[in-house]
Amino acid sequence: MQRIVLLLISMGLYSFLQAQSPKVPSLVFTDAASLELIGQAFPLKSYHRIDTTLYPDFPAAVKQLLTNSAGLVISFKTRSPRIAAKWCVTNRRQSNNMTPIVNKGLDLYIKREGKWVFAGVGRPSNVCSEYIMVENMDNSEKECLLYLPLYDEVKSLQIGVDSGYQVVRGINPFKKKVVIYGSSITQGASASRPGMAYPARLSREMGVNFINLGLSGNGKMEKEVADMLATIDADAFVLDCFANPSPEQIAQRTGYLVKAIRAKHPNAPIIIIQSVIRESGNFNQVVRERVRQQNENAYQEYQQLIKKGVKNLYLIKGDNLLGKDHEGTTDGVHPNDIGFDRMLQVIQPELTRILKPLLH
Amino acid sequence: MQRIVLLLISMGLYSFLQAQSPKVPSLVFTDAASLELIGQAFPLKSYHRIDTTLYPDFPAAVKQLLTNSAGLVISFKTRSPRIAAKWCVTNRRQSNNMTPIVNKGLDLYIKREGKWVFAGVGRPSNVCSEYIMVENMDNSEKECLLYLPLYDEVKSLQIGVDSGYQVVRGINPFKKKVVIYGSSITQGASASRPGMAYPARLSREMGVNFINLGLSGNGKMEKEVADMLATIDADAFVLDCFANPSPEQIAQRTGYLVKAIRAKHPNAPIIIIQSVIRESGNFNQVVRERVRQQNENAYQEYQQLIKKGVKNLYLIKGDNLLGKDHEGTTDGVHPNDIGFDRMLQVIQPELTRILKPLLH
Repeated sequence: MQRIVLLLISMGLYSFLQAQSPKVPSLVFTDAASLELIGQAFPLKSYHRIDTTLYPDFPAAVKQLLTNSAGLVISFKTRSPRIAAKWCVTNRRQSNNMTPIVNKGLDLYIKREGKWVFAGVGRPSNVCSEYIMVENMDNSEKECLLYLPLYDEVKSLQIGVDSGYQVVRGINPFKKKVVIYGSSITQGASASRPGMAYPARLSREMGVNFINLGLSGNGKMEKEVADMLATIDADAFVLDCFANPSPEQIAQRTGYLVKAIRAKHPNAPIIIIQSVIRESGNFNQVVRERVRQQNENAYQEYQQLIKKGVKNLYLIKGDNLLGKDHEGTTDGVHPNDIGFDRMLQVIQPELTRILKPLLH
Repeated sequence: MQRIVLLLISMGLYSFLQAQSPKVPSLVFTDAASLELIGQAFPLKSYHRIDTTLYPDFPAAVKQLLTNSAGLVISFKTRSPRIAAKWCVTNRRQSNNMTPIVNKGLDLYIKREGKWVFAGVGRPSNVCSEYIMVENMDNSEKECLLYLPLYDEVKSLQIGVDSGYQVVRGINPFKKKVVIYGSSITQGASASRPGMAYPARLSREMGVNFINLGLSGNGKMEKEVADMLATIDADAFVLDCFANPSPEQIAQRTGYLVKAIRAKHPNAPIIIIQSVIRESGNFNQVVRERVRQQNENAYQEYQQLIKKGVKNLYLIKGDNLLGKDHEGTTDGVHPNDIGFDRMLQVIQPELTRILKPLLH
């Protein structure tokens, strides 16, 4: 009899404790392939920037870099108090001048009072990672943008929310389409996280759909790449591609690129941005002279094209893009977040002025 | 006879070619142990911040973190056109919220027209690395500061210059000694390179010898640590240690730490800096509330100490340290270089004002 009483008491106690203990709901995952994907020049099923099978003549390095998900963003909505992600990238080596978060990780923004506000990151662990990016939120409906890794290829991606909540396809909140073709700096080295790449910051600040076609070390204006760029149905083209080619290549190739774009887009603004000054040239006289020559040649090409009557062509000078204190890079070449902030202070007002007719 | 003529011609040609080919001089390395080491609270032979064998009661994590070389700097002079380094660290895992350069690499500054100017980095490859940090310089004499890794232990370090040039011991260019005790943010997460940690930037900007005693995740004001801090012969103490302890620990421990320092340093300024607001708390309500409570308790402790008559005690508020656009962190917690820049904009004028009497 005593045993039965004890058993009943302990059973009651167990039920009571179970009812009292805070329920941690399980996460339910949705394949991001069913959600809105922003940032591609042409719509694709994969998380590549360009379908490189269509361009067999591209240099191998260009093809490989176009599989990196720089500038790609998933748009979705949810009321879940938690948002997690499961994703897989390649086993390629981590770059030593950037964070694993920007290299292989994720970056989540949520709209609040009309502005995109940082919410959390997805920290990568291995080839495949799972991470809770934000938790303990209220359950109002939230518009979310999830930025994909800048320097790796995303093989799969799932968004996780608390069971009982849903992930709903979002919209593309950015207007028009402006291609930025360039170097590692365009691709986003060395921002601290994917949403801090300067094209991504421009999109959030200006509400414009900037397309990141930065090709680390390989933004060299090859004819095949120029021909592809010209076929993108963009409203404007930003050419931030004067850091990778030699001064001679700049002299040989800039005219072809601009004319190829102009032939297919008679009125689209084309904006040349000279290379940032390399801080590794503070004392290295060879580096300093090379950048001077690159920018000199970019300027000469711009002048020639203007003389030949190319309209709606602009040039943003490179001499003050990183400020004056020499603290704006991670490694002497690639802007850190201060460097990118200073680039925006120069570039954004110019782009706002140039793109104004498009946006009204 | 013909053979002899041919032999003489070819010998002459060989000598001629040898004289014409540009000589790449070999690198000659000097052990940095023979050079000036800046940034230690007490002079030590190793690249540790504190000799933890003297403090057996410190928590294990604190002991391990004090072996990290955050804030340590080698001062030397050379006329060599190239400066390289060979260094070894541990095989500890790379953090996913910082660059390998800041985690395990090196950062070189050179004095130009009275200012410290970024010259180059040492990119880490493995446990042991060799890297040419700058080359193609003129051969005027240069004063150099080499910042050591923020988040690893330096086992050995050698400075390399072109053969025919020398590495000469430099001086400590910074005056006085100001301890900054704190968290991972003080230690430098997530600056892009070692010289961008905020104590290092303060030293260059203010000319003051700031000592980095940031302890990632472990700046919790334990009694044993407080007692050690009080024994440092510093001219002022900055307490940036309100991000790691719980609100309760802040209430329990702040008074002891301040009084321990005051007992040994009757007149030294003691500056409390409230925790930065966590950007991960933009939507995570629990995080937001915890930081609010930490800073509330830090403020209460400060008020109590003032009431009890502690003089020369200051408080810098935490609410605007990262600006207002929520872009100042790498991961929601640790400032990126923009975040640190904004911290300096608040902290540096305050420290300049408070430390002014010491510096004249």
